[in-house]
Amino acid sequence: LQLVAGYMGFSGILGHEFVGIAESGPLTDQRVVGEINCICNDCDMCSRGLGNHCSNRSVIGILNHDGAFADYLIVPEQNLHAVPDEMSDDLATLVEPIAAALQILEQVDLSSDTRVIVVGDGRLGNLCAQVLKNAKCNVTVVGRHEAKLRTFAALNVTTCHLDDAPTDRAADVVVDCSGSSTGLATALSFVRPRGTVVMKTTVAAEHEIALAPIVIDEITLVGSRCGPFDKAIAAITNNEFQLDGFISGRYPLERYREAFKHATLRDALKIILEIS
Amino acid sequence: LQLVAGYMGFSGILGHEFVGIAESGPLTDQRVVGEINCICNDCDMCSRGLGNHCSNRSVIGILNHDGAFADYLIVPEQNLHAVPDEMSDDLATLVEPIAAALQILEQVDLSSDTRVIVVGDGRLGNLCAQVLKNAKCNVTVVGRHEAKLRTFAALNVTTCHLDDAPTDRAADVVVDCSGSSTGLATALSFVRPRGTVVMKTTVAAEHEIALAPIVIDEITLVGSRCGPFDKAIAAITNNEFQLDGFISGRYPLERYREAFKHATLRDALKIILEIS
Repeated sequence: LQLVAGYMGFSGILGHEFVGIAESGPLTDQRVVGEINCICNDCDMCSRGLGNHCSNRSVIGILNHDGAFADYLIVPEQNLHAVPDEMSDDLATLVEPIAAALQILEQVDLSSDTRVIVVGDGRLGNLCAQVLKNAKCNVTVVGRHEAKLRTFAALNVTTCHLDDAPTDRAADVVVDCSGSSTGLATALSFVRPRGTVVMKTTVAAEHEIALAPIVIDEITLVGSRCGPFDKAIAAITNNEFQLDGFISGRYPLERYREAFKHATLRDALKIILEIS
Repeated sequence: LQLVAGYMGFSGILGHEFVGIAESGPLTDQRVVGEINCICNDCDMCSRGLGNHCSNRSVIGILNHDGAFADYLIVPEQNLHAVPDEMSDDLATLVEPIAAALQILEQVDLSSDTRVIVVGDGRLGNLCAQVLKNAKCNVTVVGRHEAKLRTFAALNVTTCHLDDAPTDRAADVVVDCSGSSTGLATALSFVRPRGTVVMKTTVAAEHEIALAPIVIDEITLVGSRCGPFDKAIAAITNNEFQLDGFISGRYPLERYREAFKHATLRDALKIILEIS
């Protein structure tokens, strides 16, 4: 939805969370998911092992590379991961966002007494909350949507409406999954001095924000994007995620307009487009 | 100057970088410098050893506590540090900003091959560049003022005018000492993906900034404020700083208007107010 709103200035075929059948390469005829960064293996970033930040990359469905809302999709062989037989297609489409949620663990030190607030009760907020809960953190989700917040009860995650959010600035770590340009300011209102804000939200708009509090309170902000597919596949296979009810709708590709409209609804989590 | 411009909404006596004679307490009759955060020793932050972030603090010359541009100044005993006899009064006034510069080393991992850009050729930029040079980093200072940039030659620090700054985004760490609301955007234009921006600039204004690149490039932003006085006193005593020419002007307190005007000049570094 952000891409349609103008984020990245992308014009091309959308779709970067997908499962399909490989038609060539070592995984031919197997179900596969694919990492979205298509890299040069040659630049300074690639040489450092930071291929996701390749200077010459294209990004499937986001930057100079057509995405998965199509009959066929070209993915570099090195990006592909086989999907275990026991994993459903629905779950396989969640490998990419679950990897992104797991990226938090690669970047921030967390322990069982870490007080974490997740800002945002949507799809990414849900997955991040589950990752953090699995990491034994003390997690609270703050959101605006009663119906979405109720879905967290099954996860044993504490929730709170934004209007009733704590004002004691006691969170060690806040993860902004709001998908809103106001999310960072909200996150900063929750984090304690010397705490960490993980920025997961990418929006097209510029933010107007008072940055002096970041300096005064010595806050650390950590941008966080794509994560480890192998760990995501393992975690899903180990049933570490509670994903019942996560698929809010299912449409054939031809009915993409309806699908997009559904995705904008308050209660929508993941919408699946199917290509037969 | 930022406080006069409205930063922190402070109204009271300014002055938070000072040396004086203690009139009571264990350091009576000794020359002393003082940490600026006056803390409660009781709150959650104080209990964690993060007294500089005390929830109930006043800050000398900045927040609910009159500062040093006066005949007398009240400083909690625990804030005082004796000044070694061999340290001049001029150098003693630099303990506070040098401590703030040294704070970078407390927060960011640096090594001899770390490429660092310091944005800002003023007072704090100068001190931060020296701290980073002493830590064996590969340091470049980017600024707007030819005269100020020339002062870095004596430090063996590479300099570059902002208009000629590198566009290859190769810096591992960028320190924003610009004192400008545009400094963060400049810093972000220099830092490599997965690099770190240290925010040293506190300005009254709000910033309008595109934050998506922080997420996409997984940049870490670290707010950095007050630092260790003991280390600053030791480093100055060990002659680790080249501070010749650092004092740009000297005025009796009565001539504070001239002193402030001088401080706004392009070439001004530190201005001393003297109280006899």
